[in-house]
Amino acid sequence: MKKNGPEARLNELDAKTIEVIESVAQQVRANIVAGRLPNISLPVRSLDNVKYDQAKGYFELGDAHKVRTLTVNTARVFAQTLRLMATSRTMVEHDDYATKREVYYISKNWGECRFDEQADSDAVMDDIEAVASAHGLSREQLRFYPETHGGSVAGRLVVIDRNAVTGETVEVDCSNLGSGAYSIPRSAEHLSFRTDARFVLAIETGGMFQRLNNHRFWEAAHCIIVEMGGVPTRATRRFIRVLSDKQNLPVYCFVDCDPYGFTNIYRTLKVGSGNAAHINRFLCVPRAKFLGVTPQDIIDFGLEDATHKLEPTDIKRAQDALENDPFIAAHPQWIAAITQLLKMGVRAEQQALAKWGLNYVIEEYLPRKLANENGFLP
Amino acid sequence: MKKNGPEARLNELDAKTIEVIESVAQQVRANIVAGRLPNISLPVRSLDNVKYDQAKGYFELGDAHKVRTLTVNTARVFAQTLRLMATSRTMVEHDDYATKREVYYISKNWGECRFDEQADSDAVMDDIEAVASAHGLSREQLRFYPETHGGSVAGRLVVIDRNAVTGETVEVDCSNLGSGAYSIPRSAEHLSFRTDARFVLAIETGGMFQRLNNHRFWEAAHCIIVEMGGVPTRATRRFIRVLSDKQNLPVYCFVDCDPYGFTNIYRTLKVGSGNAAHINRFLCVPRAKFLGVTPQDIIDFGLEDATHKLEPTDIKRAQDALENDPFIAAHPQWIAAITQLLKMGVRAEQQALAKWGLNYVIEEYLPRKLANENGFLP
Repeated sequence: MKKNGPEARLNELDAKTIEVIESVAQQVRANIVAGRLPNISLPVRSLDNVKYDQAKGYFELGDAHKVRTLTVNTARVFAQTLRLMATSRTMVEHDDYATKREVYYISKNWGECRFDEQADSDAVMDDIEAVASAHGLSREQLRFYPETHGGSVAGRLVVIDRNAVTGETVEVDCSNLGSGAYSIPRSAEHLSFRTDARFVLAIETGGMFQRLNNHRFWEAAHCIIVEMGGVPTRATRRFIRVLSDKQNLPVYCFVDCDPYGFTNIYRTLKVGSGNAAHINRFLCVPRAKFLGVTPQDIIDFGLEDATHKLEPTDIKRAQDALENDPFIAAHPQWIAAITQLLKMGVRAEQQALAKWGLNYVIEEYLPRKLANENGFLP
Repeated sequence: MKKNGPEARLNELDAKTIEVIESVAQQVRANIVAGRLPNISLPVRSLDNVKYDQAKGYFELGDAHKVRTLTVNTARVFAQTLRLMATSRTMVEHDDYATKREVYYISKNWGECRFDEQADSDAVMDDIEAVASAHGLSREQLRFYPETHGGSVAGRLVVIDRNAVTGETVEVDCSNLGSGAYSIPRSAEHLSFRTDARFVLAIETGGMFQRLNNHRFWEAAHCIIVEMGGVPTRATRRFIRVLSDKQNLPVYCFVDCDPYGFTNIYRTLKVGSGNAAHINRFLCVPRAKFLGVTPQDIIDFGLEDATHKLEPTDIKRAQDALENDPFIAAHPQWIAAITQLLKMGVRAEQQALAKWGLNYVIEEYLPRKLANENGFLP
């Protein structure tokens, strides 16, 4: 069992989290004591209130707020909001946490104010996360952890963690895991690092990650490799962000050359997405750049006969990005690259490099690309 | 770079792999020299030739063979089969490997006999795997690795691997990875282990894995925990199998109480599936047992109000299992459990235990279940 109860030491951020929860609760209480209807002010999370901030480089919530006042109609969700904040507080104090799914089930013991559907508990959780976010606190700080798996990591990195029972420091040397790798935990908040890497290489597919790891590419390239496995999960995004911030490292993305790779995988990693704008500030990776595969790489590395025709969904996604995506619109290089891809009419996967031999990617492609970091897409 | 070329030492299994490939090639050559049409005999992989062997406890190929003779119509696939076997041989010699996707791309340099679609290269690869399987050789031995991610591992286990460049031994202590975990590599063939665990606990969801890991459940329970993340991938299945075999450990599965959990997740882990029968013998985990959540657990642990109604797809899947699944048919306890679930009309997730508190699963559910290992489903 983990140590818990009063003896668990709270750090500064924990204290701030409890302070934010208490200030909301005290306001509710003050209103009740004064004979007024209590209310809670919550940031509006709908897309109307989301903007892409070019200077900050991510999607974020605007200033609109909604006020949840206690009425006959809102009594249940009002109570749920308060109980969920109380749950969060308890978890902070006891150094525990819950996934979205667990939060939903915890409520089954709340009698009349239990959640009927997980969609309902998710919405209330998002509301509380939005309040915390306005105070600079991440969802992990509230002890709401993502359900999904984190990616794998290998390379020139020591992760400094702790034994959750004894509190002892634990060091994981990601250069000494053989053919295996370090599996990213669901929260990276408490981690620190030691590294002499020059950059982080974030890789789309597990197959490519395994190749670069088995051949210890990261050794000579002086880097850390991270497997995203398609669109990176929140745990993976937060880990890369914390690592990039704490160690001041650029993040280079090695992704398929197709609209999905550009606008879903890469863009999600770098700037986040509109419908989770209340937490993007903690998840986005502003120092991410797109190493490849670029449309020009298809020509420069002779991959034409290892490409596939763009499907109608690819074309639609590309056109949609050109017309409606504020991140793409802000970067002429991206407009040019997507336009070039549409003109070529094909897409290429990162594994297509195997056409020139399984390890062409290690011996030729990555060294040539890394020699010209200015050529990366923004 | 990994060491490669003639100096790479081949082990016994590598030598046997090359021997099998050479014997097929020599037969082809002998026929040509004698002026006869060359042919290759391949096990039939269609479902007609798949049977569930109750004694062995897994789905396996029957004895039917097809003969691929060189004709005008088969010239291309005949050449592809030989080239792919040659590729496998080269990879064995150079201690490299390829994913299915990479194999497809490698062929882009084969001129006229390149593969047009990955489905074609997959089929030829499966044929070669079936030949090797008949000689007791796994697909990993041919150096065909799965694309998909392996799950995570933590607990009382030291994985003994090697540095692929220097050949030095690498030991990974899975009890000392903090809140992180060991990410299973795509091939477990070369791994060995040291452990004082009493069993392996294979867990369906990442959220539950993280909970048991963060609270170091495995420490007092003397076990190794493995995250399956839904239906386990081939890398995860093979890892569990090799671990169970080499260390003589039973494997207990902790999965949702629903037809998908029983017949897809658990059954795939234990006996494999009909459409990959040619490799099931290497992937199945005969020592797997079903710890829970069982239909009876819903009653015994008071989870009734944390259940969900069975959907029509659940009911269909359950009925289908009762009528057509030879594994279920072979086990009266499974017939009884699925019949009970259909009668109750509900399903329960493993997270439903959170109804009684986040750590009820650690403090109450698992200890009670583990005290009665005879109560597990087969």
